[in-house]
Amino acid sequence: MNQQELLKLLEAVQSGDLSPRAAIERLKHLPFEDLGFAKVDHHRALRQGFAEVVFAKGKTPAQVAKIAGAMLEKKDSQHNILVTRADAKTFAAVKRANGKAARAAKFHETSGVITIERNREITGKGLMAVVSAGTSDIPVAEEALLTARMMGNRVEPLYDVGVAGIHRLLEHREKLTEARVIICVAGMEGALPSVVGGLVAAPVIAVPTSVGYGASFGGVAALLGMLNSCASNVTVVNIDNGFGAACVASCINRV
Amino acid sequence: MNQQELLKLLEAVQSGDLSPRAAIERLKHLPFEDLGFAKVDHHRALRQGFAEVVFAKGKTPAQVAKIAGAMLEKKDSQHNILVTRADAKTFAAVKRANGKAARAAKFHETSGVITIERNREITGKGLMAVVSAGTSDIPVAEEALLTARMMGNRVEPLYDVGVAGIHRLLEHREKLTEARVIICVAGMEGALPSVVGGLVAAPVIAVPTSVGYGASFGGVAALLGMLNSCASNVTVVNIDNGFGAACVASCINRV
Amino acid sequence: MNQQELLKLLEAVQSGDLSPRAAIERLKHLPFEDLGFAKVDHHRALRQGFAEVVFAKGKTPAQVAKIAGAMLEKKDSQHNILVTRADAKTFAAVKRANGKAARAAKFHETSGVITIERNREITGKGLMAVVSAGTSDIPVAEEALLTARMMGNRVEPLYDVGVAGIHRLLEHREKLTEARVIICVAGMEGALPSVVGGLVAAPVIAVPTSVGYGASFGGVAALLGMLNSCASNVTVVNIDNGFGAACVASCINRV
Amino acid sequence: MNQQELLKLLEAVQSGDLSPRAAIERLKHLPFEDLGFAKVDHHRALRQGFAEVVFAKGKTPAQVAKIAGAMLEKKDSQHNILVTRADAKTFAAVKRANGKAARAAKFHETSGVITIERNREITGKGLMAVVSAGTSDIPVAEEALLTARMMGNRVEPLYDVGVAGIHRLLEHREKLTEARVIICVAGMEGALPSVVGGLVAAPVIAVPTSVGYGASFGGVAALLGMLNSCASNVTVVNIDNGFGAACVASCINRV
Amino acid sequence: MNQQELLKLLEAVQSGDLSPRAAIERLKHLPFEDLGFAKVDHHRALRQGFAEVVFAKGKTPAQVAKIAGAMLEKKDSQHNILVTRADAKTFAAVKRANGKAARAAKFHETSGVITIERNREITGKGLMAVVSAGTSDIPVAEEALLTARMMGNRVEPLYDVGVAGIHRLLEHREKLTEARVIICVAGMEGALPSVVGGLVAAPVIAVPTSVGYGASFGGVAALLGMLNSCASNVTVVNIDNGFGAACVASCINRV
Amino acid sequence: MNQQELLKLLEAVQSGDLSPRAAIERLKHLPFEDLGFAKVDHHRALRQGFAEVVFAKGKTPAQVAKIAGAMLEKKDSQHNILVTRADAKTFAAVKRANGKAARAAKFHETSGVITIERNREITGKGLMAVVSAGTSDIPVAEEALLTARMMGNRVEPLYDVGVAGIHRLLEHREKLTEARVIICVAGMEGALPSVVGGLVAAPVIAVPTSVGYGASFGGVAALLGMLNSCASNVTVVNIDNGFGAACVASCINRV
Amino acid sequence: MNQQELLKLLEAVQSGDLSPRAAIERLKHLPFEDLGFAKVDHHRALRQGFAEVVFAKGKTPAQVAKIAGAMLEKKDSQHNILVTRADAKTFAAVKRANGKAARAAKFHETSGVITIERNREITGKGLMAVVSAGTSDIPVAEEALLTARMMGNRVEPLYDVGVAGIHRLLEHREKLTEARVIICVAGMEGALPSVVGGLVAAPVIAVPTSVGYGASFGGVAALLGMLNSCASNVTVVNIDNGFGAACVASCINRV
Amino acid sequence: MNQQELLKLLEAVQSGDLSPRAAIERLKHLPFEDLGFAKVDHHRALRQGFAEVVFAKGKTPAQVAKIAGAMLEKKDSQHNILVTRADAKTFAAVKRANGKAARAAKFHETSGVITIERNREITGKGLMAVVSAGTSDIPVAEEALLTARMMGNRVEPLYDVGVAGIHRLLEHREKLTEARVIICVAGMEGALPSVVGGLVAAPVIAVPTSVGYGASFGGVAALLGMLNSCASNVTVVNIDNGFGAACVASCINRV
Repeated sequence: MNQQELLKLLEAVQSGDLSPRAAIERLKHLPFEDLGFAKVDHHRALRQGFAEVVFAKGKTPAQVAKIAGAMLEKKDSQHNILVTRADAKTFAAVKRANGKAARAAKFHETSGVITIERNREITGKGLMAVVSAGTSDIPVAEEALLTARMMGNRVEPLYDVGVAGIHRLLEHREKLTEARVIICVAGMEGALPSVVGGLVAAPVIAVPTSVGYGASFGGVAALLGMLNSCASNVTVVNIDNGFGAACVASCINRV
Repeated sequence: MNQQELLKLLEAVQSGDLSPRAAIERLKHLPFEDLGFAKVDHHRALRQGFAEVVFAKGKTPAQVAKIAGAMLEKKDSQHNILVTRADAKTFAAVKRANGKAARAAKFHETSGVITIERNREITGKGLMAVVSAGTSDIPVAEEALLTARMMGNRVEPLYDVGVAGIHRLLEHREKLTEARVIICVAGMEGALPSVVGGLVAAPVIAVPTSVGYGASFGGVAALLGMLNSCASNVTVVNIDNGFGAACVASCINRV
Repeated sequence: MNQQELLKLLEAVQSGDLSPRAAIERLKHLPFEDLGFAKVDHHRALRQGFAEVVFAKGKTPAQVAKIAGAMLEKKDSQHNILVTRADAKTFAAVKRANGKAARAAKFHETSGVITIERNREITGKGLMAVVSAGTSDIPVAEEALLTARMMGNRVEPLYDVGVAGIHRLLEHREKLTEARVIICVAGMEGALPSVVGGLVAAPVIAVPTSVGYGASFGGVAALLGMLNSCASNVTVVNIDNGFGAACVASCINRV
Repeated sequence: MNQQELLKLLEAVQSGDLSPRAAIERLKHLPFEDLGFAKVDHHRALRQGFAEVVFAKGKTPAQVAKIAGAMLEKKDSQHNILVTRADAKTFAAVKRANGKAARAAKFHETSGVITIERNREITGKGLMAVVSAGTSDIPVAEEALLTARMMGNRVEPLYDVGVAGIHRLLEHREKLTEARVIICVAGMEGALPSVVGGLVAAPVIAVPTSVGYGASFGGVAALLGMLNSCASNVTVVNIDNGFGAACVASCINRV
Repeated sequence: MNQQELLKLLEAVQSGDLSPRAAIERLKHLPFEDLGFAKVDHHRALRQGFAEVVFAKGKTPAQVAKIAGAMLEKKDSQHNILVTRADAKTFAAVKRANGKAARAAKFHETSGVITIERNREITGKGLMAVVSAGTSDIPVAEEALLTARMMGNRVEPLYDVGVAGIHRLLEHREKLTEARVIICVAGMEGALPSVVGGLVAAPVIAVPTSVGYGASFGGVAALLGMLNSCASNVTVVNIDNGFGAACVASCINRV
Repeated sequence: MNQQELLKLLEAVQSGDLSPRAAIERLKHLPFEDLGFAKVDHHRALRQGFAEVVFAKGKTPAQVAKIAGAMLEKKDSQHNILVTRADAKTFAAVKRANGKAARAAKFHETSGVITIERNREITGKGLMAVVSAGTSDIPVAEEALLTARMMGNRVEPLYDVGVAGIHRLLEHREKLTEARVIICVAGMEGALPSVVGGLVAAPVIAVPTSVGYGASFGGVAALLGMLNSCASNVTVVNIDNGFGAACVASCINRV
Repeated sequence: MNQQELLKLLEAVQSGDLSPRAAIERLKHLPFEDLGFAKVDHHRALRQGFAEVVFAKGKTPAQVAKIAGAMLEKKDSQHNILVTRADAKTFAAVKRANGKAARAAKFHETSGVITIERNREITGKGLMAVVSAGTSDIPVAEEALLTARMMGNRVEPLYDVGVAGIHRLLEHREKLTEARVIICVAGMEGALPSVVGGLVAAPVIAVPTSVGYGASFGGVAALLGMLNSCASNVTVVNIDNGFGAACVASCINRV
Repeated sequence: MNQQELLKLLEAVQSGDLSPRAAIERLKHLPFEDLGFAKVDHHRALRQGFAEVVFAKGKTPAQVAKIAGAMLEKKDSQHNILVTRADAKTFAAVKRANGKAARAAKFHETSGVITIERNREITGKGLMAVVSAGTSDIPVAEEALLTARMMGNRVEPLYDVGVAGIHRLLEHREKLTEARVIICVAGMEGALPSVVGGLVAAPVIAVPTSVGYGASFGGVAALLGMLNSCASNVTVVNIDNGFGAACVASCINRV
């Protein structure tokens, strides 16, 4: 039942063709989503609308290009567009397919992210820091950083500040203290969020990476380390989930 | 918004005090659960109403007795009452607390189940068999059997028919073939459902038990065995979940 | 010992050449499978006969084509033929090898299923619904859907109704309520069966998929979620086992 | 080196007894913690000072009472005091030991939390909601709720809104939408945060509980479910860590 | 159908009341277990008859005593009787309940085994050695040793010959070489079977024990070590399964 | 120190050039392996000498060919030669490299085994049966079968007798009963050894295979099932270790 | 064969009663352990002789007292005596049983260690530091500290220097730098050894503790963290194995 | 703040432009790393400076060549250069890129290590032994051996001395006894370190390798075996971490 039909029903009540009690019976079986849930949907749109996202993995370059093209054609939206887990072929397809609008597309090879920036407004309330432990954690950190930027945050990277050389991290203490929310990316033993969490008052979103070998078990060691962090301002997202960390951090930076 | 309020709204439309379009606006914010979800709730009542259930674990004897007492006081319901994971103390409290009505209460020590049978109508469409492998699987099997009986099924137990003495199982082939749905309870290697599934055309609900030691890992070995069953009519519920298996089997025996 | 030999033995009893007691001794060592198990086999044929199935993975295209060809040549069977986990090469081989009969073969690329439909009779008693959470769960969902159809069920897909946008699922509540059995396919956290199970009275066959990354551990997270479902009408099959779920659901839809 | 010593060193420079270059050499070996880290400590005090916390598990009642007594004696602090994982004996000891000041002590039996409230100022910026799935998740939820209150937040509980009866959750949609940050506590399959996350724009802190049996593996099933949540505003803390969730949520509610 | 009924059927054939072909039809539905499986049962009796076994764990002392009493009353059997996983209370009950016959009962406290020896015949073909690594592995080793003895094997213990003092093991090389089959019991890293296996030509049955702490995970470390043994004459039974190891070794020592 | 040197030392004692006490001092530092361990080595030769084995995985075709060539050149040995985990390229290299002697080389593609049979003597005492559950377990079963044959055993395969069609296994009961030792190969739920073990008195060597998908975890489900077998004559070797099973079974068949 | 017998044999060679070749034959079967392994044993005595150790867990107080008494009675040894994993009852038994000598016995309740110090000589070459993260790690740290002291090392504790308050650790940098070997004890995320390892040049022995809850899995999180440490001077011992860490550290401190 | 700025500040104190107390205030906020941590860095340089290391995995040949080139250009350093986890392409790039200096570069194919030796001074105090179990463990053992050599140690390999042929190990007992520190590399059951540890007084660094199949789980079986070693002088590094073991062993060999 859409609004048209609802309107007809209410007009039938108005005209006396349908009694209020009979209308109640019909309304009881009304698919509620046509009423109340529009609001919910609106909320979803408001919330996630700050960037449109395509997850490229498992999709062909052509499929990604088509989806991105459709996004670019929507006249009434100037949201930034973000494609994650893409490769050079997908980037070429996106460039080729979308004419003039795709000129802005950039490929960030390290993280496999494609960005089409159409809106540079900063809507996040404060600084976001993306801290990472080793050079091999950078792909995940960059995914987080680009996602957060596309979502309207001012973001600064602090890379290669692993705990085995603790002074490298301490050098950046002022920047860490300034941040309103921190994304902390680490593989291996995943100890960085505990140290960072102990230095700041802001919430720390920990991202374990699958970096490491042997008993790192594809990031499980780092994940467990972060879940057991002795710092009380640390929460955790899934392994390698830089995108997810940036989503949560954006939520926090907007509340 | 309850039906009263909805009636008022529609009467205002009828009387012309409210235009249909204005009514739509107000209906959009209507808490949908007052409409459509009554139906859902009704469904839940219909479905689960064939027995009232109390999960005793983690509740004091007094708490269980109070809940059971409240069920017995409901005048308009003659459902059977089932208390699972209870002990002798809880049974004593249930007996004591509920006066005459509690005379029917029985305690099944092996499985820790208390039953108060008030309705012996068989509503399940066919025979249900509860097959178990070893004597130590019987507590879980009995929980399934009693649950299924309280829910209105004709149930027959086939106990101690483990696969290391395959002829014991084969002796009961006719009974197995007759069953409309089979609950199959096994610990250790959990091989019984595969053999049973190969003998019958009915669906087999497999229940791994935590029986075993060493590398049985509290039922994980049996659980994995059942999930990997080479018989294609086997599904699985959680470890030791005799109650859940009986719920699913009852669903199937009513469709 | 085949029937010929048994006949001779009994004729010897009839003629007096062999005493009944001596016959008993000989019968004791009779390979029982020549007697009683024919019935079992017959049962198997009856049960599984609604479709002939080839599991293509680990077989060469030629091998699959040969098996399918043999199935097509059996004059007295008009069962549907189902090849699972196949690819385009296998499909080409099946088409090429089987002459006219193979014209009906269709390849369903998403799920890697080849179907040769020869019998459109609906033998399942009610509607079967195949519900899936995300777009990446569709290959498994489609395997379930096609298997169920080949086995004579009326099946309807409800795709992309994951729990993070709960209204999408609720829109289809009526269809869910209509179904006699539901297959519910989900990866990641595997939460969909719990929500679906709470909305309906029918049994829900949950299929965890290996979709997800990091701590999804190839479907383990979804599997555990489903085994621990708080809805009491949910059972579980192995990860990615769309075929198996359809087999069980067909069993249920025939009882 | 403390400030006295540093002052001497600088006075020696001032008086000419020590050249600036020689002073640099000595400063190079200066224990930096006497300088810069006071600030860090100050930060820690500022951040965690909104409540003083004792983790009672593994401590004797006497030890807890002594620690709490010392906190109460600090004249210049009127922070709330929180004791987690305590039992009735510990509560008795705390009451007995601390004279008048301990009159305010309350024991919350369900969660094993002792609170001594001395400051009712609300310092959190918005509403915090604590949502929990089943009745057995309430101990963890209550630990979160009391911790958050002691830390100066306005908190509202929404209990028993598990996903198998989705309408119970949807009834509270408005309250959920109002919350600035949500703590979501669930055991078994841990599906609740995904559904809640899909309904709101606020960050959701998911707390898996060890509630469940069999393949719940003491909360691992719920933990994995939450880490794999398909809602992008969900982060996770350790199993049963209601306290930690409240700490993080308080951080977020203050930024 | 029992032999009586079968006799009647065959007499009816003999008398001409039943044709051979009609008899075949009736025999087809004959429960085969009444024929062929007697032989299997006989085999089971023959095989396991060398000792009667009661698994005491999970049974009350009274239950164990009753079972043992029934075994002692069987006039035609003089098998040894073995009760595993028993305690002093169970032993007292066994002694009390079974009169004169129970005088022979002995309780082996270390392993919790009760033996009633009625038959000292050695039926095993060669020497069996039970080798164990540390003193804390002795309970499991003793269960194996006593089981093997009750089953008619000549068995010698070689205890406390762990691999960290390799010379202790090498001292017994001659005894090891003499053994026809070796049971090798070890906890912690479970390295002993590899070393023993490399020294002998006989089959080695490895028994992991749950001895150890931390990352021994209740015997998993030893179990994995044994499964991955680099000696090619090593097989493995379940953790702490001294009884099972002795059963297998007895099988081997009789073939 | 070799025998020559030892002889010199003793001759020096004989001649009086060295006192007995001085000789003891020198003997104390004697590398003992030159004495006692020669015997051990001899044992090893005796034991494993019934076949020479090359594990091809991780070696280049040239390396394998070279090793096999060296074995063929040893004049005084006519042992069979076995290459496991080989491919067609390795087979070609073996054929090419070893001249006339290599004519006997055969490649068994299913299992990746190369055999060079030079000695057909049967040295095993009885029949060995290799039983396997599904067609996909055959590669592992064939590795076991060929290994056992090369080691001088009479071996018979019983393939495709999985437990979901139990009558297929029961048909071969006589053959199973005849076997002196049984190798039992199964993937998925690994239930076959329990059923086989219950039918026979011989020892059963269970080999889990990595066949299966989803929650089979590369053979872990089958491994756990076999370790928890309720039949007491079952032992277990590593996943896919057909070669190892045949080694153990050969040991048993020779004792 | 002991030295006496060997002497006789050599004297027989000297006297001509035995030819050198015949002597070789007899020497070949000489149990080598009587020669060469005395040296090994001597080595063991030398190495472990710096303290005598009793592992009390699983032993009765009487057993421990008896073992300790026997140690005290050995006239020619003045080694320190260490009893680990003991309780107050065991301590009482040790005191009671051993007369005057036991006056020196002390019970360290936190770690359950009993020490009988008879030798205060420092034999370790440098300072050993025992660093621990949280107060609940102290029992394991103290076991390490006392073990190391009993073994003749100069040891200093640095407790409660967890990484979430990194300045507490940095304050002790000079002490850390001084240490020749460091034992680093930590539960929860196990991050401390990485930070410590990055600050020093000495080897760091990491001991994971079972401290933590939820996803710490009894120390597995800490263990994995330490195995994956990004500092290259870190090695790991088993969970809670303070004793073992001290043994290794003592080895290092003596080389 | 760098030294220049600090100098200015102190000169201002000297000149009287700044009071000592005001200087303290400014110094309190001084980034401490500019002072104290230089020392720490110096320590790091001293410690790790005995070799420069590039981890090639995940880097392109060009990147590795560039890094190595930069190392070679540093005039004031003559450290050895070590590239781990490299392949032939990377070696070619390193050779090509670095002119004359690269002539010394050697590629060790087995372990994938490139060495550029510029300094043959032995700085380790004693002999280091690298012991390995099977031929397939050699790549990891060689990584350890080459790393240790590049770091200035005298190292001897003892390969192929697995525990299933214990005499092979015992032959080298003297060499083992001579070693000041031992690296012990083993896959499969990981038993070697226990046996080696029992033979020597030196610390043993155990390296599990991912060699094995089935239930070796990529080295987990060996890792657990080593963590549970019954020899008290064994510590463990991560799976396949030959480099790390050599770093720790070098630390120990320098203290």
